[in-house]
Amino acid sequence: MRVLGIDPGLQRLGWGVIEAQGSRLRHVSNGVCESGKGELATRLLSLHAQLTEVLRAWAPDLAAVEKTFVNRDGAGTLKLGQARGIALLVPAQFGLEIGEYSPNSVKKTVVGVGHADKRQVDHMVKMQLPGIEIAGPDAADALAVAICHARHIGTRQLKVRA
Amino acid sequence: MRVLGIDPGLQRLGWGVIEAQGSRLRHVSNGVCESGKGELATRLLSLHAQLTEVLRAWAPDLAAVEKTFVNRDGAGTLKLGQARGIALLVPAQFGLEIGEYSPNSVKKTVVGVGHADKRQVDHMVKMQLPGIEIAGPDAADALAVAICHARHIGTRQLKVRA
Repeated sequence: MRVLGIDPGLQRLGWGVIEAQGSRLRHVSNGVCESGKGELATRLLSLHAQLTEVLRAWAPDLAAVEKTFVNRDGAGTLKLGQARGIALLVPAQFGLEIGEYSPNSVKKTVVGVGHADKRQVDHMVKMQLPGIEIAGPDAADALAVAICHARHIGTRQLKVRA
Repeated sequence: MRVLGIDPGLQRLGWGVIEAQGSRLRHVSNGVCESGKGELATRLLSLHAQLTEVLRAWAPDLAAVEKTFVNRDGAGTLKLGQARGIALLVPAQFGLEIGEYSPNSVKKTVVGVGHADKRQVDHMVKMQLPGIEIAGPDAADALAVAICHARHIGTRQLKVRA
């Protein structure tokens, strides 16, 4: 079962693909889509094209997107929202169901505590996917989302069987 | 010159197409894309498909999208942002340049004052596009955005000529 995790962002959108067999996880690929410095619509178009290419290249069976942290910075929330629209659209265009997890829920599943910092997330991702090279903090977050989804799906399947 | 105006929204996304020849405007079509009540990704997928169909059917040369009003309701801003991501993506996928106007700028151009209410906008859209039937308030706002863009483009072309 191949799982795609996405950490949405307008400037940098992290992605990570892992293979999950029961509780065994294996790294497949990870990276960051960058939208450059042009007009907003052009940047969204670029993210859409790059993310479409990721789905084509790695053909995941499942996808999960990190829930965006909503704060008082309305303009920042709007930017993230626009990028998040693309992050949800592309897997849906490939017919995938999409899980959504809050940052805290991801950290709790991957690190064990909800308020882990970036370094701890990075460390635990590397522990769970030995030998991996990570394209940057956004890719690490995306891989954590993929791991989180794989663990939740695994638990759900065990419950269905029981 | 055919101009598409879009009033983005997750639940209802209004659109309107007009034909502009110099200062003369003519109504072409208008409507509202509704995203239903499913999962967020499915709703965004539906908006994308409907808006793509509008672009295919009416083949506009230009597009403009209303700037989203950012307020303190972070969750609302995020929802709008996600829909707005789709509203900007689709015209960009058709290779169109996209104008962006704040609600006040649209009202100022179409009604003459920045703080006009919905009824005044509706009235002035009907005045400038005689005989039109409007699919609802979101479509009226979208037509106002199209009129605003046509007026601005017209002014810009006159300035280039002068």
